Parts: sequence; C-alpha cells; structure tokens
Amino acid sequence: MKFVTIDDVRAAADRIRSHVVRTPLLAARWGDEQRPLWIKPENLQPIGAFKVRGAFNAISALSGSAATGSGPTDVVAYSSGNHAQAVAYAAAVHGLTAHIVMPEETPNIKVHATREHGAQVVLCAAGERETVAARVVAETGGMLIPPFDHPDVIAGQGTIGLEIAADLPEVANVLIPVSGGGLASGIGVAIRALCPQARIFGVEPELAADTAQGLARGHRVDWPIEDRNRTIADGLRSQPSDLTFAHLQQVLDGVITVAESEIRAAVRELAYRARLVSEPSGAVALAAYRQGVTPPGPTALIVSGGNIEPQMLRQILDESVPD
Amino acid sequence: MKFVTIDDVRAAADRIRSHVVRTPLLAARWGDEQRPLWIKPENLQPIGAFKVRGAFNAISALSGSAATGSGPTDVVAYSSGNHAQAVAYAAAVHGLTAHIVMPEETPNIKVHATREHGAQVVLCAAGERETVAARVVAETGGMLIPPFDHPDVIAGQGTIGLEIAADLPEVANVLIPVSGGGLASGIGVAIRALCPQARIFGVEPELAADTAQGLARGHRVDWPIEDRNRTIADGLRSQPSDLTFAHLQQVLDGVITVAESEIRAAVRELAYRARLVSEPSGAVALAAYRQGVTPPGPTALIVSGGNIEPQMLRQILDESVPD
Repeated sequence: MKFVTIDDVRAAADRIRSHVVRTPLLAARWGDEQRPLWIKPENLQPIGAFKVRGAFNAISALSGSAATGSGPTDVVAYSSGNHAQAVAYAAAVHGLTAHIVMPEETPNIKVHATREHGAQVVLCAAGERETVAARVVAETGGMLIPPFDHPDVIAGQGTIGLEIAADLPEVANVLIPVSGGGLASGIGVAIRALCPQARIFGVEPELAADTAQGLARGHRVDWPIEDRNRTIADGLRSQPSDLTFAHLQQVLDGVITVAESEIRAAVRELAYRARLVSEPSGAVALAAYRQGVTPPGPTALIVSGGNIEPQMLRQILDESVPD
Repeated sequence: MKFVTIDDVRAAADRIRSHVVRTPLLAARWGDEQRPLWIKPENLQPIGAFKVRGAFNAISALSGSAATGSGPTDVVAYSSGNHAQAVAYAAAVHGLTAHIVMPEETPNIKVHATREHGAQVVLCAAGERETVAARVVAETGGMLIPPFDHPDVIAGQGTIGLEIAADLPEVANVLIPVSGGGLASGIGVAIRALCPQARIFGVEPELAADTAQGLARGHRVDWPIEDRNRTIADGLRSQPSDLTFAHLQQVLDGVITVAESEIRAAVRELAYRARLVSEPSGAVALAAYRQGVTPPGPTALIVSGGNIEPQMLRQILDESVPD
C-alpha cells in the first residue's frame, strides 16, 4: 500500500489553487480559554463542502491528459451527497462530462442541483450504486472518482492541513470529522509533517462510530448501514476503506464520539456565534470540542460542509436559543 | 475638507493586517448569468462585522503614541450596535480602556457582549449619547472614535476595496450598504483608484433612503429618526456626515433602494445558498443585486455583518423556503 505523502499534498495544492477557496482560519473568541478556538469554514467552498478539493485534484490530473487527447473525457461518481456535486462541478470546469449515479430515493433537490452543474444523473435502485457505476465506466470509458478511496482524493483534502499549518503553526489540536476517512487522512498527513507537536483527533457520531471501534481493535469493523443511518449527520455514514483506515491508524491520536443532541447544539452555535450555516456532519468537530476532553492549547476544527435542507435548519434553530 | 486617499487606505491595510480577517471573495455560482456574483463575507470578522477595520485603524494610530506615553490610554465611543463591539474589541487588543456610551433601552444581550470585551458601559437616556460621550471624553482624556465621521475610520473600511481589487480586478459593479456612509466612502476611494472601470452603488432600505434622496438633490437631507427606525435593517438607520456625504458624492454612481420584504428574502438566500448568517443590514446589497438593475458584468457585494438576534433569524427563515 502506497501512503500519501506531504509532497503529494503540496502537488495537490498547486493543482487546485485556482479552483477552490483559500478559506481563512477564523479566530472564535467565544471558545474555551484553555483551548483558543479556530474554525476552518469549508462550508464556504463552491458547492458548500470540502469535497471540491479532492475532486479537483483527481480530475485535474485527468484533464491534462484529456487536453492532449490521451485521457478519458468522461468521469463517473456514485454519491447522493456532496461528492456528487463536487465531481459534477469540477468536471464542468474542466470541460469533461460527468455521470453521477444516485439512488432512486435521492431527494429531488439534490438530483436537480447535480443536473444544474451539467452532470448526467443515472438513477438506480438502492444498493446498486457501485454495480451501476461500473457499468457506466465500461460504457463511457470514463474514469471513476471515488469519494475517499483514492490517493489523489486524499491528497486534495489534505490541502486543508497545509493551510492550517501556514495560518496557525503552533496548533495543539486538530479536530476532523470522519466518515470514509479521506478528509482526516489527508489533513493528518499534512499536520503530522508540518506541525509534529499537534494532536489530531477524528470525530464521529456515536451512532456511526465504526472508526473509533476499529482503531481501538486494531482492524476495520463493519457496522450495518441501518445502524449508521440513524445519525442525523448524513455525510458521516460511510466507513473507511483499507487505504484510508491505514492512514487513520498512522495519523490519528484518537477519535471522539458525539451524541445527536451535541451535534444539533453545534449547528446552532455555529449559526449564532460563528455566523456559519453548517450541515450536521459539518458541525461534529465543534460538538467534540465542547466536550473539553482534548489537551489545552490552540485548537483548529474543520466545518466540513453547509448543505442542510432548509426545513432541517429551521427545525434545529427552533429547538433552543442561547442567551 | 480633506478627502481620504488610496494611500491612506493602503496605510490602513498595513496597520490592521494582523487584527482582521483577510476575507475571501466567494464566487456564488447561483447568481445571475449576466452578472457573475461575488460575495465579500465581512460577517466573518471578529465581532461579526466590518466595523473592526475602521476601529483598528483609528485605535492603532493612538496605540503607538500610548505606548510611548504620549497618547491617551482611553477610548470612547457611542453606539448600541456593531461599532460598540468593534471599539471595545480593538481597545482590548491594544491594552486601552474603552468607554462605550449606550442608550438605556439597549438590549441586555448587547450590553453584556460589550462588557465581555472588557469595556466600561455607560448607560444614558435616549438622545443623550453624544452629550454623555463628550462628558466621558472630558473626564477621562480619552479619544472619541466616531462610527463613520473620521478619516481613519473611512480609510480602515476602505481596505475591503483593496482586497476586492486584488481578487477581482475586472469587477464591473460593487454594491455596498449605506448608513453613515463610512463603508461606502472607503471602499469607493479604493475601487475608484484601482478599478476605474467599475460602477459603485450604495444600497439603502426604502424606509431609510436619505442618502438616495440627498444625492439626487445635491445636498444632505435629514429624515426624522422615527421614519428611519421603521426598517428592520437596524444598522442602516444613521445618516452621512458632511465628510462622508462629500465622499459619496465623489465615488458613487448611484444608490439602489430595497423594500423590507426584499431584505428578508436576501437574509434567507444568504443562509441557504451562501451558508452565511447575515443581519438584515448585512443583506441589503444582495437584495439590490436581485433587482437586476445594474449593468452586466462581474458584481461584488458586501455582506457587512452577521449580528442578528436568534429569534429574528428564526422568524425570517420560517417565512419561506426556496425550492
């Protein structure tokens, strides 16, 4: 297995620079005194999530060869979430055709948004996504862009770590949401290399804590999808691959798990105190921070995305009002 | 009358760099095709509004002389809004004592937030703010930091224009909320100097459109405060001074006025599409953009602040849901 290196992450940064937002690291003066809080608002990326970084890095490599007539002109992805939008968007920018395979039960709003980016949407039965995607790859000669299980995708997400290291070299703790593990793997590689003093924590919902359990046991564990589907954090229901799990074993100091009520409170806190709209998956790192269990020192956390249904946002904001 | 120059704005940028967020200019792909939309999210500044730029520039000059024992060690401001927080915050960073004069009817949440920054809050009867502030200045020897009627404050707000010119040199339109006019004056100076092709538009609520009327008539006009208080955009109820009005006459190509319902719709659009929480005053430039009356071409607008009461945010989000 080939591990992603800091050089891979640096190369990704050069590739994607003109396509992604160089997000600021926001000092949040309302944090804990022992752990000065810094927020990396990746919900401000095009399509509203960090996923554009990995998608652009994977597709940019392709696009060079496509331009010379030597590479594919189509890309394929299976996702009903932010990865779908990211691949559709990055493909459109590079003039490639994107085919996005989505389950039939995907909300219309997401199908519509994906088509708005110019992508071909292929609907399929639940559980058939990978099979259908493989067929589309065979038919179109397109290149499959997986949501996390690919070195270029991991390296792209890792560019967030480069930016944190540049903005806050003295960082003591970095808190990162974990689902398939691409984001935490990439950031972990960058932070380990550039800020060796920092502790790196993954964050999972208690209801989808397969990585916390797997790292404790020393091997990947499989949670039934029905169990993982219980969390409101719909972007955190995936599980690491062999590739990302191996990275997480190397780079994480631990995994913090958070309750559903803590996730909802963090969405509210981000809206009222940081003026950021986040999706539940995007707010878990703040929920973990609020447990106060990490070592003291400057703490950076990733708000990974902001794609929340209006109705859910209104419901969560209505639940409680801070003083 | 001495006008603020681009050199003043550049000097301000050097002074405030380490204290304010270098906000990104966010490409909003959901804009109008004829007018590609770019958003400057000043709601992400410390204290949640652009006001820190002017406050830091005015206080930084002071602070140099205070450090050598030659300047005042106290600053004074009268404001119940974002300027109060900004002065309190900037003073605390520079180790100065801030005295903030606020009307007795100021909501507790704002008094509390100002004290949290370490400021002394002086409550006074409505309409007495300026008199009381003058007394505090006499008693403490402090320096008064006005919310807009000061060249250093204007130059500080103008640093936003420098950043827009750097990020989008081909900008065709810039839309800026107007109240006392410090923000539009400063940005106007910078954009006129660096992007001479750009049109610069102020934006006001219809219910506080004194500047639109004044510029049309060629002189300042005075609207009764009871009239201006009707708008939900509580940060846009001030009127220009001689200094800012003269700047606005030089730099603005026009003023667009927006209805209350358009302001509320813009708050919703910013939450759902840009993932930003804005206050009503912060959203008026998007409301103006949505009228589609500006010339075609790349359009940058300022989201000037995000300090909205939780109850008001929930109420506005509940009013309607976009598809």
